[in-house]
Amino acid sequence: MEFKDLKETTISRKDVFEGKIMTVHVDQVRLPNGEIGEREVIDHVDGVGILAIDDEDRVLTVTQYRYVFGKTLLEIPAGKLDWNEDHRLGGLRELREETGAVPEKFEYLGSFIPAPGCYMENLHLYLATGLKFQEQDLDPDEWLDVDRIPFDEMVERCVNGEIEDGKTIIAVLRAKALLHR
Amino acid sequence: MEFKDLKETTISRKDVFEGKIMTVHVDQVRLPNGEIGEREVIDHVDGVGILAIDDEDRVLTVTQYRYVFGKTLLEIPAGKLDWNEDHRLGGLRELREETGAVPEKFEYLGSFIPAPGCYMENLHLYLATGLKFQEQDLDPDEWLDVDRIPFDEMVERCVNGEIEDGKTIIAVLRAKALLHR
Repeated sequence: MEFKDLKETTISRKDVFEGKIMTVHVDQVRLPNGEIGEREVIDHVDGVGILAIDDEDRVLTVTQYRYVFGKTLLEIPAGKLDWNEDHRLGGLRELREETGAVPEKFEYLGSFIPAPGCYMENLHLYLATGLKFQEQDLDPDEWLDVDRIPFDEMVERCVNGEIEDGKTIIAVLRAKALLHR
Repeated sequence: MEFKDLKETTISRKDVFEGKIMTVHVDQVRLPNGEIGEREVIDHVDGVGILAIDDEDRVLTVTQYRYVFGKTLLEIPAGKLDWNEDHRLGGLRELREETGAVPEKFEYLGSFIPAPGCYMENLHLYLATGLKFQEQDLDPDEWLDVDRIPFDEMVERCVNGEIEDGKTIIAVLRAKALLHR
């Protein structure tokens, strides 16, 4: 069965949690068939992730403890955008804060939606090359280990599932296709 | 600065929202430096997404309205796992429900973590081929349009950012690498 119009319209909104990094609300919506449904929504600021490749074709990675999953994950540098912050400037900021790197070239790799069902985040991706290095400048509640891993090894680990972080996989595999690697 | 142990341990947990598809809690945690921090956590069941390719090398896609983003997204068939459901069986179930397809081959493409910061979901991916077709069998609050798009066009659209859904991008680009396409 096909529906010409799949749109769901908001009837009412009930805020249920206001946190530091998210707001949760439950909305009553009008479904495509005219009935009433409920949608649980997490509002969250957008983010940016940076695939930074040094002059020896190595990717800058950060390993950090992900409390929600109870383990460390290997990821590309990334972070939440400040309110109304341009994602290009935010990306340059996060890259410098987490790794000290300042790129000569900073190319947009597009964005993606991590979890379209209930989690309102767009994640913007950049490819950073021509890196110069300054000091790290981490947030007070942020601890991470920076490493450098050959690009081809990163591709392999993104394909075989060893690297689990979505933004890292997408940035590496988009760059592989765009760089014809 | 490097920390040998990046682990954060739970001191206390406060449940703030119990919904139908998620539970939100705020935990006090011991940070690596001994100080106390706070983590906002969304518990959510795991999911499964299926890259199904028909005998004419076309990918089965579903277009559905994503209320959180206020627009339709083009995605691969996917869904939440039932409590304690095996992700292979869940994948076969979701594929059949959303598209009617029943595959001859069903290969695991690994999992990924959509949003490691605060959203507890693992998403498992499968590659389905050798498709036979039965009737669709949608959930009562689910509306979607099924389409078929050539694999190479899907790759192009996942790379250029036109396709925004994370699981779709990862499944397509992992399959591209594994199938040496």
